[in-house]
Amino acid sequence: MTFDEAAEALAAVGRAFHARGWAPATSGNYSARLEDGSIAITVSGAHKGRLAPGDVMVLDSGDPRRPSAETALHLAVYRAFPDVRSVLHSHAAVSVALGRTSGDAWTIAGHELLKALPGIDTHDTSVAVPIVENSQDMATVETEAMPRIGRAPAFMIRGHGLYGWGRSIAEAERVIEALEWLAEAELAERRFRG
Amino acid sequence: MTFDEAAEALAAVGRAFHARGWAPATSGNYSARLEDGSIAITVSGAHKGRLAPGDVMVLDSGDPRRPSAETALHLAVYRAFPDVRSVLHSHAAVSVALGRTSGDAWTIAGHELLKALPGIDTHDTSVAVPIVENSQDMATVETEAMPRIGRAPAFMIRGHGLYGWGRSIAEAERVIEALEWLAEAELAERRFRG
Amino acid sequence: MTFDEAAEALAAVGRAFHARGWAPATSGNYSARLEDGSIAITVSGAHKGRLAPGDVMVLDSGDPRRPSAETALHLAVYRAFPDVRSVLHSHAAVSVALGRTSGDAWTIAGHELLKALPGIDTHDTSVAVPIVENSQDMATVETEAMPRIGRAPAFMIRGHGLYGWGRSIAEAERVIEALEWLAEAELAERRFRG
Amino acid sequence: MTFDEAAEALAAVGRAFHARGWAPATSGNYSARLEDGSIAITVSGAHKGRLAPGDVMVLDSGDPRRPSAETALHLAVYRAFPDVRSVLHSHAAVSVALGRTSGDAWTIAGHELLKALPGIDTHDTSVAVPIVENSQDMATVETEAMPRIGRAPAFMIRGHGLYGWGRSIAEAERVIEALEWLAEAELAERRFRG
Repeated sequence: MTFDEAAEALAAVGRAFHARGWAPATSGNYSARLEDGSIAITVSGAHKGRLAPGDVMVLDSGDPRRPSAETALHLAVYRAFPDVRSVLHSHAAVSVALGRTSGDAWTIAGHELLKALPGIDTHDTSVAVPIVENSQDMATVETEAMPRIGRAPAFMIRGHGLYGWGRSIAEAERVIEALEWLAEAELAERRFRG
Repeated sequence: MTFDEAAEALAAVGRAFHARGWAPATSGNYSARLEDGSIAITVSGAHKGRLAPGDVMVLDSGDPRRPSAETALHLAVYRAFPDVRSVLHSHAAVSVALGRTSGDAWTIAGHELLKALPGIDTHDTSVAVPIVENSQDMATVETEAMPRIGRAPAFMIRGHGLYGWGRSIAEAERVIEALEWLAEAELAERRFRG
Repeated sequence: MTFDEAAEALAAVGRAFHARGWAPATSGNYSARLEDGSIAITVSGAHKGRLAPGDVMVLDSGDPRRPSAETALHLAVYRAFPDVRSVLHSHAAVSVALGRTSGDAWTIAGHELLKALPGIDTHDTSVAVPIVENSQDMATVETEAMPRIGRAPAFMIRGHGLYGWGRSIAEAERVIEALEWLAEAELAERRFRG
Repeated sequence: MTFDEAAEALAAVGRAFHARGWAPATSGNYSARLEDGSIAITVSGAHKGRLAPGDVMVLDSGDPRRPSAETALHLAVYRAFPDVRSVLHSHAAVSVALGRTSGDAWTIAGHELLKALPGIDTHDTSVAVPIVENSQDMATVETEAMPRIGRAPAFMIRGHGLYGWGRSIAEAERVIEALEWLAEAELAERRFRG
């Protein structure tokens, strides 16, 4: 993956996430690990509904712009998982509400869509996505989240949203799409249960 | 219907379904029976929001790609109903939640939109869509579902989504649109009833 | 308003309504009264998400196609209100659910958006939209609905959807947009009230 | 910011708000303070889904068209806050429902998205958006609202919608996007709490 390919794909992810309400008010940040090991990430403060390849920068490249304030979390994931090539952070109303009303994990069971998560090949299982407390200190979030990563390539920050990753931008997008859909299904299920 | 026409129309269905949240994370699969009796179906793992005619293949044609993992269910419908020309599988949060919280059928009554189902010409009736258990063995799903098909050209797999079909891609699309809308109306109705 | 202008505008309304889920599975029908008094209306069975000017026909013009099955209701409105130039029928999950769970009228009070209805110039009022029973006999619906029209240029058919009209296609569209939005606001309000 | 830039950007805001259901039935109005201190604002009655730069006018410029009926509220904000360059008014079903079911303020706490509001740099805080009664007399609304503005550059009119502002059109848009998203998150949270 070259920088140009990554920048184009990350900008498309941002526009798609914004269209669904998963990136309001310049929230959200997206990155990719390039062929040479460097990290491409969205700059701080860009409106995701108008995200363009020019809003993606390479870390430690002399680019004077400020990368996303949550860059440290992306780097933590890349350090922990050498085969990860992309990290995406969504900020959706439904999953944030789910996180604010849950304990320290979100457990998903019996859904066919669990199979969208790499390494899971049956619906007849249960997966726990850890939920950690929000902090303005990214090191604190990292310390809380990273040891608790389980079978889902993802964690949630309470009141803040979802981090998901994959071995390609497409795989990371699939993880986020699956988890945001599962949060919506959980909400609808609660209502059907009355 | 030629292959090119079918591939174009199925790709458009996929993009439309994805835009509504009915095909998250590469879920969903769509097929058509061509003039010569062969079956065109989406390949496994394609992102439905970017579905292109090139993501549709002909079964048993030497195409080395893997067809949808649920191909057997499509074939079961084509075997059972000789006039069916298209089978579509949607995977929507609301109808999946409805299926997870229902018994072995979803009964729809009194809706004008029932008339979107072929052969139904009044709202003043009731239609039951069978709900079968999910399985990673498609033969099991088929054995459970096919004998229970009633007036709706459709069945639901619990936690997995809706299958619908018709004598054309447009008719199958109409069936899915009607049923997904009816699930949304059911959800809203539950809330208005408090 | 010429036929070409009307056909173009009605097709655009249909595509916009379908995009919002107000015209699923070929439901919905839209008409306009032209300069010469003739009525342009959508043909029966067209998919509203792909609605084109060619899907609009002129009644009693020798066009061999079948007009909407609900043409009689459109004509009843044009007969009753000589200044009406357009009638639109939406079929939205939320307002249909509201109609199925209400009595014989939907009363809207205190909303600024009431001012989108012609002749209403304050939010500090209350408007009742009549709800009539569905029937496959349009004459029965007409007989029930027309005498009950009040300040809102609209009525609702239970389990079937909303009819609204105006002195132009734009005004009729404004009426439908206002009422569908008000139904969504009513649903959200019920949930906030718990 | 020239008039042409402002008109283009405000029209784009209107189309985006309408697409999300935040500007139904010609509701909503948007303004900007230009370089020379004059105010550009949307004309009364334009459909926001088709909003074009030509639907924006300059106040007191001899333009014979009627500006938004709520122009006085925009001017009140510009008088009170000399660095404000844009005022936007959204009219969304969820936040209007929240306002109709709340007391005299909407208190938001613990959300990362609070940081989208200028001057707020932590999620670990609480912000109150004042809610004032609706009136057809804009002077009454102004008198009620302006003394109560707090840390959020925004107020809500009950049954009518949200006003938000910023030092640029983009900042005002960010404020509105954040608050509408927070209202949706609040609604989902209520449902998860059961």
